Amino acid sequence: MPPIINVKTDSRIEMVDITAAVRKELSRSGITDGTCVVYVPHTTSGITINEGADPAVCRDILMKLNDLVPANAGYLHMEGNADSHIKASLMGSSVTVLVEEGRLVLGTWQKIFFCEFDGPRSRKAFVSIR
Amino acid sequence: MPPIINVKTDSRIEMVDITAAVRKELSRSGITDGTCVVYVPHTTSGITINEGADPAVCRDILMKLNDLVPANAGYLHMEGNADSHIKASLMGSSVTVLVEEGRLVLGTWQKIFFCEFDGPRSRKAFVSIR
Amino acid sequence: MPPIINVKTDSRIEMVDITAAVRKELSRSGITDGTCVVYVPHTTSGITINEGADPAVCRDILMKLNDLVPANAGYLHMEGNADSHIKASLMGSSVTVLVEEGRLVLGTWQKIFFCEFDGPRSRKAFVSIR
Repeated sequence: MPPIINVKTDSRIEMVDITAAVRKELSRSGITDGTCVVYVPHTTSGITINEGADPAVCRDILMKLNDLVPANAGYLHMEGNADSHIKASLMGSSVTVLVEEGRLVLGTWQKIFFCEFDGPRSRKAFVSIR
Repeated sequence: MPPIINVKTDSRIEMVDITAAVRKELSRSGITDGTCVVYVPHTTSGITINEGADPAVCRDILMKLNDLVPANAGYLHMEGNADSHIKASLMGSSVTVLVEEGRLVLGTWQKIFFCEFDGPRSRKAFVSIR
Repeated sequence: MPPIINVKTDSRIEMVDITAAVRKELSRSGITDGTCVVYVPHTTSGITINEGADPAVCRDILMKLNDLVPANAGYLHMEGNADSHIKASLMGSSVTVLVEEGRLVLGTWQKIFFCEFDGPRSRKAFVSIR
């Protein structure tokens, strides 16, 4: 298994900033130049990069996803989380970040967010740096 | 050209599970540890990773995409497939999956789906494993 | 810093074809086979691959994004660009393109578009080829 970041969520839908955990894995890897892929192995969660300074940004993203893809809106999938699967595909299952001089090349306001869409749950993300 | 996966679709919009074909390319490559990129060279199809156990999940994803981006809804592009282009960008043109010990590191329920949005067509996806 | 592509935008939302600039960086790198990642370090812009022949396709993508995620629609984030952040996550922060024989492996109609959602601005994208 690749290095794992564990994520615990408290709500049905929630964005969790995992940037510090990704940086820790980068530091452990000893790699100074390359590419970092963070991959989510779940089908009702996703991952995205967005602003971390004002938590209202994540709340707006989640509200809009709920607005576009409401829960329990006549879906065929009978487990009550069809909306979670759809939201997951809209955000995507991985992000790729460049690595230079031992650091993630993120913009000033960018943070990496694990996106839970069917919580609360204990989840994980894989990190691969090459 | 990189290794090609051929995909034949029967409907205007359709998700095709190409996981087995990607695994075959991985096996052929002989690579045991690295990163696998599956890339779609079309502008009216995309690619996503989601649940493969219940086919209703894919039907829900496609229904929601049709609901958010209906066909023939006053678009400027005159070829009748403006919605297909928009759906393609919402899903994305590639997925990245980690490779360890000769295997794709997918979650229990995850499958890789080629997403046709302007079928039926004969399409292809490229696989690059490094 | 990785090689930078500078992008100047004239409107609030706009898609800018940066394919030629990415090709120039590929040529400079001297790399003939590998993977090219184009990364956007901003939280109110994104990146996507779509059709470049008919400019109506990009206008349709932008119109639909404005339709699904209108500006100033009761968001919590108070800077007037909550919609820009949401649009950025829908498009994504990077694209990955394969490289073979010194060329980007793009489909016939595919171009790489920087997506401005809070312009006009001077922006940048990073290119990493390995």
